[in-house]
Amino acid sequence: MNTEALFQQIRNKHSFLCIGLDTDIKKIPSCLSDSTDAVYSFNKAIIDATAEYAVAYKPNLAFYESLGYKGWQSLQKTVDYLKENHPEIFLIADAKRGDIGNTSSLYARAFFETLQFDAVTVAPYMGEDSVSPFLSYPDKWVILLALTSNKGAADFQYLKDQESGKQLFENVLTTSQQWGTTENMMYVVGATKAEKLKEIRQIVPDHFLLVPGVGAQGGSLKEVATNGLNKKCGLLVNSSRGIIYASSEADYAEKAGLAAKEVQQEMEELLKEAGLI
Amino acid sequence: MNTEALFQQIRNKHSFLCIGLDTDIKKIPSCLSDSTDAVYSFNKAIIDATAEYAVAYKPNLAFYESLGYKGWQSLQKTVDYLKENHPEIFLIADAKRGDIGNTSSLYARAFFETLQFDAVTVAPYMGEDSVSPFLSYPDKWVILLALTSNKGAADFQYLKDQESGKQLFENVLTTSQQWGTTENMMYVVGATKAEKLKEIRQIVPDHFLLVPGVGAQGGSLKEVATNGLNKKCGLLVNSSRGIIYASSEADYAEKAGLAAKEVQQEMEELLKEAGLI
Repeated sequence: MNTEALFQQIRNKHSFLCIGLDTDIKKIPSCLSDSTDAVYSFNKAIIDATAEYAVAYKPNLAFYESLGYKGWQSLQKTVDYLKENHPEIFLIADAKRGDIGNTSSLYARAFFETLQFDAVTVAPYMGEDSVSPFLSYPDKWVILLALTSNKGAADFQYLKDQESGKQLFENVLTTSQQWGTTENMMYVVGATKAEKLKEIRQIVPDHFLLVPGVGAQGGSLKEVATNGLNKKCGLLVNSSRGIIYASSEADYAEKAGLAAKEVQQEMEELLKEAGLI
Repeated sequence: MNTEALFQQIRNKHSFLCIGLDTDIKKIPSCLSDSTDAVYSFNKAIIDATAEYAVAYKPNLAFYESLGYKGWQSLQKTVDYLKENHPEIFLIADAKRGDIGNTSSLYARAFFETLQFDAVTVAPYMGEDSVSPFLSYPDKWVILLALTSNKGAADFQYLKDQESGKQLFENVLTTSQQWGTTENMMYVVGATKAEKLKEIRQIVPDHFLLVPGVGAQGGSLKEVATNGLNKKCGLLVNSSRGIIYASSEADYAEKAGLAAKEVQQEMEELLKEAGLI
């Protein structure tokens, strides 16, 4: 999927919502406990209830891997279901991978060929050859970690480089623009640092940014939009727990739909204010 | 497994060899093409032929994930086979994971509970809370990326911090020592930078180091030993392709055994020279 198709979807749905399918087997409503594949059943119901409000879904691999190969099987089924029933959706593997070149190319094969994801999150620590194998697939994307929303982000991401005077996350943003383009690279920018978004927008004015952490992690959507929107929207804002665990009872899907609709409506207002719809 | 047990194994086998089970379905000898699980059959034969010369095995997850859930199934079977038949072996998931705290704890569950690995490689970019969930398991290990052996290592790992004057990889070594101990943390140090090993040994004199890149990636074992051995050996040196693909014919296991034995014999000499056996 290219930028234009993604922006078109955003305009159609009046939404830049990404839903994090962080499906923890321990948090699935008890009414699903008889299901042969409770994770997939849960995902399917959540997707059906929320797809009209979301432009992207983002399963985090850790939740699936905690169940071993069975979790990967549930993930495969979830991806297949989305591709078949909601082909307009932008599908992100939140995997935070990265390895030496020939090994990263096998991760790319995993997420772009074996599984039909549109994008994969990648950690920048190992540099260019760990990222570039993902960039050789047409219409597929790398979403590179720049500034993350967790407490530990402060340990290394803010370290200021002697030579350039730039912080590490700024160096990641600047250097990686030589590796990819606005048509195959996005960045992860933690929303709890909304004041930082403005600075980041100056470094990467045209790239899409994936913003986690609105909701449970404490970011404000309005602040993110004010600092982050560009002329093609340029934002995918993720919400996970606030939507998929809106209820732990039999009405979990319905409540997830309502929670997603609420975020979408706020996004609609923000897109209108910005003159994007 | 604790340091003492690992060192004991090193003394028993006269070896600090780690074998990288980077099993690429596209490189498996054609004589295995009829097998229902060629990856597992290959691994099993390689393990049986090499286990007397190796103290650790290190499957890189990318190779298994490129096959989707079936690859994870082959990995599970490989781990189970090793645990049952070679319980002395130190088992490393080369996964290079790392995510926000509550998500990293699910990766820890994946590798330490669902799969019975002893250690997992972790990327440091997201800082302390992305690493610490792996450290709460007794006798399990984090192997943190410090200085990697690939070309892209130069993009960020050498950036010099204004405040401390230290390079990023040195900051990773220094800061992370506050998170873990010599009994639950090791470091990845690329062997192609053997001259760097000396410096690194001064920062982490007592930690075990996992050194990839001897062989195909060009490092010299003697140089690594000279600069890296400490009083409990403190080194696991990995070889992958040079051993597991020693032959692409029906004699692949036998040839892998011979290649592993050759490395082990060189290691035996180096251990003797250092007075460790």
